[in-house]
Amino acid sequence: MSPSKLELVAIDDLPIVKPGDDLARMAIDGLERSGIRLVSGDVLVIAQKIVSKAEGRIVVLAEVTPSARSLQLGRETNKDPRLVELILSETKRIVRSGPDVLIVEHRLGFVMANAGVDQSNVGAQDGIERALLLPLDPDASAESLRSALSAALDVDIGVVVNDSFGRAWRLGTVGIALGVAGLPALKDLRGRPDLLGRPLRVSISAFADEIAAAASLLMGQGDEGRPMVVVRGLAWHEPASGVRALLRPLEEDLFR
Amino acid sequence: MSPSKLELVAIDDLPIVKPGDDLARMAIDGLERSGIRLVSGDVLVIAQKIVSKAEGRIVVLAEVTPSARSLQLGRETNKDPRLVELILSETKRIVRSGPDVLIVEHRLGFVMANAGVDQSNVGAQDGIERALLLPLDPDASAESLRSALSAALDVDIGVVVNDSFGRAWRLGTVGIALGVAGLPALKDLRGRPDLLGRPLRVSISAFADEIAAAASLLMGQGDEGRPMVVVRGLAWHEPASGVRALLRPLEEDLFR
Repeated sequence: MSPSKLELVAIDDLPIVKPGDDLARMAIDGLERSGIRLVSGDVLVIAQKIVSKAEGRIVVLAEVTPSARSLQLGRETNKDPRLVELILSETKRIVRSGPDVLIVEHRLGFVMANAGVDQSNVGAQDGIERALLLPLDPDASAESLRSALSAALDVDIGVVVNDSFGRAWRLGTVGIALGVAGLPALKDLRGRPDLLGRPLRVSISAFADEIAAAASLLMGQGDEGRPMVVVRGLAWHEPASGVRALLRPLEEDLFR
Repeated sequence: MSPSKLELVAIDDLPIVKPGDDLARMAIDGLERSGIRLVSGDVLVIAQKIVSKAEGRIVVLAEVTPSARSLQLGRETNKDPRLVELILSETKRIVRSGPDVLIVEHRLGFVMANAGVDQSNVGAQDGIERALLLPLDPDASAESLRSALSAALDVDIGVVVNDSFGRAWRLGTVGIALGVAGLPALKDLRGRPDLLGRPLRVSISAFADEIAAAASLLMGQGDEGRPMVVVRGLAWHEPASGVRALLRPLEEDLFR
C-alpha cells in the first residue's frame, strides 16, 4: 500500500552557489538552520541549476567560437550562435529546429529544448555573459550527494536532481528527474491485482519524475532561493536505479 | 515567493464508487473520518477513475458492436475490436497505431493511449466485461465538486481531476491534470526577474500537472483505495482556468 501522507519542505536561506561549492555541506548547514532532521527514507530533491554551478559547468560566452554550422543554425532558430555551439556540443542529434525552437537529444539521452543550456541566473551582475550546461553525469551527482549526506547524518536517503522540461502536446514545464540515486526511477506495479483481483494494466509509474514534479511546486522555476526540497513519507520496494531507466529510446517512441 | 512547505494527505477508507454516487458527499464523509478539516487554498485531487464511475461512464463490452474499421484496427493493434470501437467513439484523430499501440487525440484534446478507455477496476466480479471512459467534461466535474465542497464546508478550495499518462521519450506514467477548477492550470513566471535581476526565460509551469503528479505518489495507480488526496500549502496569484490552458494544439507541437 502507498503511504497516506507526504510532506515536502524546502530548505530555506541557502546561499547562492558558486563553482566548487560543497553541496552536501550546504545541505547539512541548511537543514540545521531550517530545523529539519533527515530520517531514512527521505528524498532530497535538488535543482539541476545549482548542481551544474557547483560542478563548474559554466561557460563564458565570449570564449565560444561558433562553427559555420552553429552560425547557420543560430540564424534559423534566432539564437546566439555561441549558445548554439554549446548546445550542439551537448547534443547527440537534433530532433527539431525552427524559429525559436531547437529540440535535441542530449548526449545523456534526454529529449529536450536547447540541450538544457541555460542563460538565466548565471551571474550576469559582472556584465559577463555566461551559460550553464547540465551536469556531466547527473546520476553520479545525485549519488555523490546521497552518500555524503547519508554518511554525515547517519541515515539512508534518496536524491533526485530535477529540472523543468517542456512536453509534447502539453503547455508549461514540469519538474522531471535528471539524476537519481538511492531510489527506483520507475515503480513497477505490474502483476499486482487491482481491488477486484484483476491484473493492473497501465502500471509502471515514473516514480522519480513524480517526485521531481512535486518538489518543483516548492522550488519556483528559475528561483535559486529554494533549490533543495526534502520529501518525506515515500515508500518503495524496488531496487534503486539511475535515470536511464526513465529514458525511452527515440526509435521506440510510441507517440509518433 | 513560493510556499516553503507542502502537505499531501490521502483520504482513507473511501468506499468503492458506483454510478450515481455523490462524490462530494463521499469526500465530506471521508474527510471527517480521516480527521482532515479543509481550509481555503487546499486543493483536492481526485482520480479520473472514480469520477468516471460516479458519472456512469461505464460501458458493457457485450453491448458494443464493432464497425468494420474497428475490426481492422483491432487486428492491427491486438486489441478487442469492441474496445477499439469505444476508443474511436472518443477520438478526434489517430496519432499512431501499431501492434499493442493506439495513441489518439481524444475529443477533449488530450493526446493519449486508447483515448483513456480502461478495462481495469470496473467491476469484473460479476463476470461481465466493462470499460470505463473519461468523464464527459472533466473541468465541469472538477467545478461541480469544487462548488459543492466549498459551499458545504464554507471554504474556497481548488479541485484537480488527475489521470496517469505515458509520455513521449520517457518511460513510465505520471499523474497529469484532466480537469481543473478553482486554480490556475498554468503559472506564468514570465517577466519576474530572477535572483540576479535578469528576466526568467523558461517560466511557464504546468501547475495543475505538477499537483496531479504529486498526488499520484499517494494514490498508487489502479488502486481505487486512495483516489482522493488533499494538497495543502500551495499558493497562486493567477486567475483560475480549465485544463484547456494546458493543451498544445497538435499543429503546434514543437517536438516533431
